[in-house]
Amino acid sequence: MSNPSLLILPGDGIGQEVMAQVRRIVEWYGDKRGLKFDVEEDLVGGAAYDAHGTPLHDDTMAKAQEADAVLLGAVGGPAYDDLDFSVKPERGLLRLRKEMDLFANLRPAQCFDALADFSSLKRDIVSGLDIMIVRELTSGSYFGEPRGIFEENGQRVGINTQRYTEAEIDRVARSAFELARRRNNRVVSMEKANVMESGILWREVVEAVHKADYADVELSHMYADNGAMQLVRAPKQFDVILTDNLFGDILSDCAAMLTGSLGMLPSASLGAPMENGRPKALYEPVHGSAPDIAGQGKANPCACILSFAMALRYSFDQGDEATRLETAVQQVLADGVRTGDLMQADDAQPVSTAQMGDAILAAL
Amino acid sequence: MSNPSLLILPGDGIGQEVMAQVRRIVEWYGDKRGLKFDVEEDLVGGAAYDAHGTPLHDDTMAKAQEADAVLLGAVGGPAYDDLDFSVKPERGLLRLRKEMDLFANLRPAQCFDALADFSSLKRDIVSGLDIMIVRELTSGSYFGEPRGIFEENGQRVGINTQRYTEAEIDRVARSAFELARRRNNRVVSMEKANVMESGILWREVVEAVHKADYADVELSHMYADNGAMQLVRAPKQFDVILTDNLFGDILSDCAAMLTGSLGMLPSASLGAPMENGRPKALYEPVHGSAPDIAGQGKANPCACILSFAMALRYSFDQGDEATRLETAVQQVLADGVRTGDLMQADDAQPVSTAQMGDAILAAL
Ligand SMILES: CC(C)[C@H](C(=O)O)[C@@H](O)C(=O)O
Ligand SMILES: CC(C)[C@H](C(=O)O)[C@@H](O)C(=O)O
Repeated sequence: MSNPSLLILPGDGIGQEVMAQVRRIVEWYGDKRGLKFDVEEDLVGGAAYDAHGTPLHDDTMAKAQEADAVLLGAVGGPAYDDLDFSVKPERGLLRLRKEMDLFANLRPAQCFDALADFSSLKRDIVSGLDIMIVRELTSGSYFGEPRGIFEENGQRVGINTQRYTEAEIDRVARSAFELARRRNNRVVSMEKANVMESGILWREVVEAVHKADYADVELSHMYADNGAMQLVRAPKQFDVILTDNLFGDILSDCAAMLTGSLGMLPSASLGAPMENGRPKALYEPVHGSAPDIAGQGKANPCACILSFAMALRYSFDQGDEATRLETAVQQVLADGVRTGDLMQADDAQPVSTAQMGDAILAAL
Repeated sequence: MSNPSLLILPGDGIGQEVMAQVRRIVEWYGDKRGLKFDVEEDLVGGAAYDAHGTPLHDDTMAKAQEADAVLLGAVGGPAYDDLDFSVKPERGLLRLRKEMDLFANLRPAQCFDALADFSSLKRDIVSGLDIMIVRELTSGSYFGEPRGIFEENGQRVGINTQRYTEAEIDRVARSAFELARRRNNRVVSMEKANVMESGILWREVVEAVHKADYADVELSHMYADNGAMQLVRAPKQFDVILTDNLFGDILSDCAAMLTGSLGMLPSASLGAPMENGRPKALYEPVHGSAPDIAGQGKANPCACILSFAMALRYSFDQGDEATRLETAVQQVLADGVRTGDLMQADDAQPVSTAQMGDAILAAL
């Protein structure tokens, strides 16, 4: 039997730098734990646009469809800001999500104890925070038709369509309930059912799935505006949050920021099972390409490394190995190793991206 | 010349209780400052539904169109949760916004010094916070057509439409720039132009208005997800935030929560000038009807009272009198007068809604 395959797409800016450290970790697992991967690498985002005039080449798309897991760094940067909408770096990412049908975006917001003082929130409000946001990722306002800028009565009008089918809501709700069962068994679903019919359908379908198959999980509903408030007021009340693509974008970034360490947060985007039983899957850090520090060896590779840990858990059924890697990262933090983003102004010298990689490898 | 008219719509839950205190303040201005108002009162929300089977009677709508300013308490409550979407209490509020064409929702998020410890954020991050969110209020995903739950290929699909015309963006952008000029002269506009065409048009029109008429104001753009992050990370970077209806709903609630005192936050919703030069206007507290404490005399009337202060400023050109009222509220807080929502667990006895009203009247 051949090794499981990994497609690595470093992308733009610090994506390149953090992915270099992930490659070392992947090799370590092959050498030391007998977990060998067939690794391929390709371009995405601005890097792909520079090479091919498109943020995602069809060949790359095909490779992603075949891979057992895709690891992505980050896309975008100021050099691409003035590109046409249809070829922006982000389109590469959105095409991957859509064509691989990665409907469930898992975004943990975890506050690492060694970093709790980093949050703008008071320590007691965030320390120990461990929530999981499940964001629908392949439908809603990001993809609904009609969309575009149209001429109407002599003026332009910008249109996007929020659209969810029962089936789309059903499957992502199941992902959230399954995750809750492995965690603290609670799901809060967020929408705006008070003002939007798409939110009414969302709530109804989530209720139906719950009643039919997950009555053992505690379910409640919250309007998304109140959800944003509650995330700031008392985030530890949550276990799993289930929400749609657009609300999920905002709420998960809000939740990420609570932890005070954006450079630490991974994500997984999962689709339906492939023939080999593994879900289609793409893993990426929550942070972006950080053009301000790109190319300087300052980036924090932890989020991307922890994204690989999620791959071990969700794609390769190696929960123990995932925990090993997560523990190594926590260990390194507890030892006081810090990239620049993890330092208060008056701290000692930060380590480089590669030095953080060294430390994690040493702790493994 | 007749007195300016005020239409008071207490609505549901604590809306009734807080409005009782506003009425006393209104009378005080008539008696002591010669600012006499012709006050009328009517039903909205669940209260209107109970009386008329609709959350907003046509007669009330007509009165609102005539009034120089409308003051609203809050709408909704669990008794109405199972109502049909089309008659929910919220629909009364949305109808007022839409038919009065109140396109600019002004939501200040101000951290009162005496209450800074209330925030879940660290004191230095929020103390002195004073930002103004300008939310477009009559268009976007709340109102766009088509909308509804439709049958499609044997399953239901929930649809809402995000829709903005150039003219709609233009006018609310002007409101934001005008406000910025009276404040710290900076506007950050938030959308998702990286993934939504409606966001692209939004950004273009805001740029155009800026270039044509407000080049003296500092303008920048931010994706709404990053906006949510920045609000939590370093909210004092903002002066005026300009955003659409749906993003504004979430972001303004997030901003409100930063201050730690939802019971203190007012809002104004403004439309085009009427014949007498005053804008169509509705003022309401940011908080809701708070069914959990309704009818117990515990509610904090400050947000509703400060909404009346906004009415003095934006509808009646009485900026000095508005400041007088705001100063009285600050004074009372500094003196340690607290309703229950403004207390840490170990504090002394809270005052009642009416006692808070007494204290503010005494400070005036
Ligand atoms: C880069 C952008 C298209 C993307 C999104 O909006 O989904 C990002 O913000 C995210 O959350 O993954
Ligand atoms: C009550 C509800 C319809 C309303 C909204 O979503 O606009 C509220 O949340 C607000 O922000 O004023």
